[in-house]
Amino acid sequence: MSQHGPELRNDLLLRALCSQPTPRTPLWMMRQAGRYLPEYRATRARAGSFLNLCMNPELACEVTLQPLARFRLDAAILFSDILTIPHAMNLGLEFEAGEGPTLARPVRTAADVRNLPVPHPETELKYVLDAVSLIRRELAGSVPLIGFAGSPWTVATYCVEGGGSKTFARIKSMLYGEPELLHLLLAKLTRATIDYLSAQVEAGAQALMVFDTWGGALTPSAYREFSLRYLSEIAAGVRREAGGRRVPLVLFTKGAGPLLSELARAGGDAVGVDWTTDLGDARRMAGPGIAVQGNLDPSVLYAPPAAIRAEVERVLASFGHGHGHVFNLGHGIHPDVPPEHALAMVEAVHELSPRYHD
Amino acid sequence: MSQHGPELRNDLLLRALCSQPTPRTPLWMMRQAGRYLPEYRATRARAGSFLNLCMNPELACEVTLQPLARFRLDAAILFSDILTIPHAMNLGLEFEAGEGPTLARPVRTAADVRNLPVPHPETELKYVLDAVSLIRRELAGSVPLIGFAGSPWTVATYCVEGGGSKTFARIKSMLYGEPELLHLLLAKLTRATIDYLSAQVEAGAQALMVFDTWGGALTPSAYREFSLRYLSEIAAGVRREAGGRRVPLVLFTKGAGPLLSELARAGGDAVGVDWTTDLGDARRMAGPGIAVQGNLDPSVLYAPPAAIRAEVERVLASFGHGHGHVFNLGHGIHPDVPPEHALAMVEAVHELSPRYHD
Repeated sequence: MSQHGPELRNDLLLRALCSQPTPRTPLWMMRQAGRYLPEYRATRARAGSFLNLCMNPELACEVTLQPLARFRLDAAILFSDILTIPHAMNLGLEFEAGEGPTLARPVRTAADVRNLPVPHPETELKYVLDAVSLIRRELAGSVPLIGFAGSPWTVATYCVEGGGSKTFARIKSMLYGEPELLHLLLAKLTRATIDYLSAQVEAGAQALMVFDTWGGALTPSAYREFSLRYLSEIAAGVRREAGGRRVPLVLFTKGAGPLLSELARAGGDAVGVDWTTDLGDARRMAGPGIAVQGNLDPSVLYAPPAAIRAEVERVLASFGHGHGHVFNLGHGIHPDVPPEHALAMVEAVHELSPRYHD
Repeated sequence: MSQHGPELRNDLLLRALCSQPTPRTPLWMMRQAGRYLPEYRATRARAGSFLNLCMNPELACEVTLQPLARFRLDAAILFSDILTIPHAMNLGLEFEAGEGPTLARPVRTAADVRNLPVPHPETELKYVLDAVSLIRRELAGSVPLIGFAGSPWTVATYCVEGGGSKTFARIKSMLYGEPELLHLLLAKLTRATIDYLSAQVEAGAQALMVFDTWGGALTPSAYREFSLRYLSEIAAGVRREAGGRRVPLVLFTKGAGPLLSELARAGGDAVGVDWTTDLGDARRMAGPGIAVQGNLDPSVLYAPPAAIRAEVERVLASFGHGHGHVFNLGHGIHPDVPPEHALAMVEAVHELSPRYHD
């Protein structure tokens, strides 16, 4: 399966993402290495800042492995952030406590876009690739490692707004008023993302995911033009760069709704699904040969374990019998969820899912 | 058309909501009386606080009429808030500057829910009814007045969380862990909402809208059980209370997506549609006899007037020829939009829409 170290002992995730048979439904959790874990908070405190944690391969490896020591998960996901590319583009990324990310030098004008460098992952993002190699070595074939990046549209929202936004005032002003300028920015981000994901694969990532967190803030036609198009380019580019290797790719647009059927045709092997779409509908929209990943409402984990188990059962039943389902939350795990509630979810998937794979 | 004052000179809104022919597409804007208008900010400053403004019928009337003095709109909407009912339930509503609403006495336990009073609109919400009467008098038949309320689910999120929420931790813990308790709360809010809307009609409201701002945060099955069911009860209750009067009712769930087809069967005359659903798809999902209201992306109003005009055209074209469309934004107008941009939208609808009604 790989040029890096031993054969995988658990390849359920890779098989499910390729819609191949598995004896049970594999699972992992978006943001499984995160603030809900006390051991994560301890490492984060040692790192001093979120950005230090991302940029230190040893510490990034440490937190990547933490949830695997607690829960029977079927994948590790690289601990990093979707804003590493703008950081490498020298836009001045900072994470202020409780504030979310900010970019000190946002991209607003044609000159800003033109002057934006496309980073070389082997140099400017070397710390990420070092983390990938180290995590692969430490995993030692136990489970596969997922690499990831943000979608060009989603990353562009931060680049243009200079941080998070509710209304996307600046980037939507650009989208509707200067669409060609936005396309230029998205094309640069797409090039950078293909290079970045390909370098992650080279360093040892065994599956890839692209997070389009803000694609759902667009109208359907703007989504097609400004997000989906670039997701397709990434899927094609990553496949081209991967040569003969089969590296399953998950495309996830939060809030995709009925546009899931188009996302499923964008060239990935699987689509991520949030909790607002029924998983049976998602499976039908994805169609044969495209796997689906999701979609427990992350807020179910606030409820008592018995209720969590019932909702896990509901998600499994909504997908139904057969292969091509990777169990996950519909979005990242919330930081204030008790770890025992995550455990209840994990155990329920192990216990309840085999009957859907008879 | 009414027992209150003169005949309506412009009944385009009421006809469109009833899917009857109109020579052009009528329009209004969600939050049209709001912070983007300097004259609103001046009145608000005089009122001292947002809550004072809501509770003073003269000032509420004044701000209700302000956008009509500027723009050729086809409806006034009562200036008020979806949290007047929890306020009347004595939950301690406050609006802190820049913070959003908070409720000092949130509803968390079975005793809290049991002890919750159902307010009498004629006494505890008299200030709203006085505003409705006054606005009707001042409108003098120029355009119809829309009354409104929040959906039980949406209002319940504030009641249980004690304010706005991103994760809905407490109410989703209740939803998944103690569903019967949540149903008891929703039933009380539904009873209160039917009384409240019926009293608004009695006072002079000529159309009604229910805002289900947070229905889209639910899974499809939870949406059906905890939001849609109560919207149906409201539609039936309001119709029963209205006697023979035809008071068109718009039901709006933000983020309804494919669930629009079920919302359209809930008993309203029209569905509100946000910008993430194509309006042609919405029209098909609504089916014949149910009007659709929407759905320009409110962030289009950040773009220059020429781009706004192009997007208005796109919305009109996506609905296509025929009747039963009320033009609106897909959500409330953002507070930092230039009023001239709203004007560009209004003028574009007047100019471009007649050709869709040949």
